Amino acid sequence: MINKMIEKIKKTEAPIVVGLDPMLAYVPEHVQKKAFAEYGETLEGAAEAIWQFNKEIVDHVCDLIPAVKPQIAMYEQFGVPGIAAFKKTVDYCKSKDLVVIGDVKRGDIGSTSAAYAIGHLGRVQVGSREYVPFDEDFATVNPYLGSDGVNPFLKVCQEEKKGIFVLVKTSNPSSGEFQDQYIDGRPLYEYVGEKVAEWGTRCMGEEYSYIGAVVGATYPEIGKVMRRIMPKAYILVPGYGAQGGQGKDLAHFFHDDGLGAIVNSSRGIIAAYKQEAYARFGPEHFGEASRAAVEAMKADIRSALDAAKK
Amino acid sequence: MINKMIEKIKKTEAPIVVGLDPMLAYVPEHVQKKAFAEYGETLEGAAEAIWQFNKEIVDHVCDLIPAVKPQIAMYEQFGVPGIAAFKKTVDYCKSKDLVVIGDVKRGDIGSTSAAYAIGHLGRVQVGSREYVPFDEDFATVNPYLGSDGVNPFLKVCQEEKKGIFVLVKTSNPSSGEFQDQYIDGRPLYEYVGEKVAEWGTRCMGEEYSYIGAVVGATYPEIGKVMRRIMPKAYILVPGYGAQGGQGKDLAHFFHDDGLGAIVNSSRGIIAAYKQEAYARFGPEHFGEASRAAVEAMKADIRSALDAAKK
Repeated sequence: MINKMIEKIKKTEAPIVVGLDPMLAYVPEHVQKKAFAEYGETLEGAAEAIWQFNKEIVDHVCDLIPAVKPQIAMYEQFGVPGIAAFKKTVDYCKSKDLVVIGDVKRGDIGSTSAAYAIGHLGRVQVGSREYVPFDEDFATVNPYLGSDGVNPFLKVCQEEKKGIFVLVKTSNPSSGEFQDQYIDGRPLYEYVGEKVAEWGTRCMGEEYSYIGAVVGATYPEIGKVMRRIMPKAYILVPGYGAQGGQGKDLAHFFHDDGLGAIVNSSRGIIAAYKQEAYARFGPEHFGEASRAAVEAMKADIRSALDAAKK
Repeated sequence: MINKMIEKIKKTEAPIVVGLDPMLAYVPEHVQKKAFAEYGETLEGAAEAIWQFNKEIVDHVCDLIPAVKPQIAMYEQFGVPGIAAFKKTVDYCKSKDLVVIGDVKRGDIGSTSAAYAIGHLGRVQVGSREYVPFDEDFATVNPYLGSDGVNPFLKVCQEEKKGIFVLVKTSNPSSGEFQDQYIDGRPLYEYVGEKVAEWGTRCMGEEYSYIGAVVGATYPEIGKVMRRIMPKAYILVPGYGAQGGQGKDLAHFFHDDGLGAIVNSSRGIIAAYKQEAYARFGPEHFGEASRAAVEAMKADIRSALDAAKK
């Protein structure tokens, strides 16, 4: 799956992932109204609204990008119907040949992590039959519990040729509270990054491992260091756009050939129609606004990578 | 909710939580058969089997214990129908007046953690109406992202008078890989524990804070230290029984009055009928086997606490 993702990044010339994190407040009123007319102002109605919102955006951007990253929390907040909308979104994106990164940030003790790994990336046995419950291509994983919380994911990734992105240095302001603490002369995130590199050797695709890492765009200097520590790990870079990361900050996360990282934008793309720059599209044409925002992001990253080469 | 939990612990004289972590392999054949007869060997069939299994156990133990802890991973592995069985289990346990600790180990950046907090402990707005999506009483939270990943949970806990247990030192063998690393002369888990104590001051119940901590039974010496560092935090202690923790290891986690900790057992209770000690019940009477196992666990912990007093 890492090979497929890289191939698609090369083809689209867009090391970009669109975060499908649909807050109800992002969903234009006409979409909400239609969903509520059918299902009422219920959890089912909310789930229908975010699913229709996602579908419209995916239809407008799927030819421009290699991957999407639905954030499961935004679906989980609507209970069981929300989770059903998550699954529908995953399936639809796969039908459009997009690589799907499930932003689930799971992680637990061994036997429990195995259940998460099976649920999100693998197959579950029911009597004599097998099912693929959520069937994302990648999942994000929290490393706080150590190797035996991560190993079950590695096992399923090996079996299914899927992948994970391990949280190393997150994009949020207080990520440093624990992640930046010094251990034997280096910060915890470096130590976690070394582990990611080690885990990754057991899961190599062609050029890159399918064990990647999350390093926030908001910490470009750290990106530089982590690029060196985990040379074979793809870096998933959140925090671009709404969280404050800019194109010029991103070059450090990439190798010189323009590979090695994939940058996420969520709000900046899916709620583009609410920004002044794209207001001309109006809420009715929010999908087109998202498309324009993807094109702008692509150009921004491209020029940052070109500038870095000079 | 922390006050209610403590009141129930006092009333039942059982600082015990039963982990509802139903692997399909734990579910007796007759229960599986019945579920598959109705729904086929499908995800729905698996979900029905674990739900019926849970129900029977809850019916047999609910008068003996204050709380249950469903592990969402075990449900999530069966996809959307599994999550529906999780919700059904939460609701049923609440109808039996049990305190429900959702073992979800969620945690993300601020806005995303807010969605998790709303989904599991709070209310979500849909148009002009409000819903309680999963409605657990407590949730477990992963602290790797720092304060701004935890704050949204604190906010919802304050509003709803609910609580969380923050992962401090987990019970698994490799928990030390990151959690035991030394920072300024003390291990990371102590540093996290200090934060838990700090967060807890903003969320005080009568005697204890409703911000608790997870510290594994498998590390009793650490329990002793953490008891001191977080005097007002209730400690949720996993790892008893199947994972190797024993009654005699547990006294350190408690205050002298027998409060301050609640010990989880999952497999040891719910799959008791598979153990030699309870084989006499047979798979047909697995609920009774679970009841006997709860009684034995209660006696074990009671004698450990009594021995510690001498």
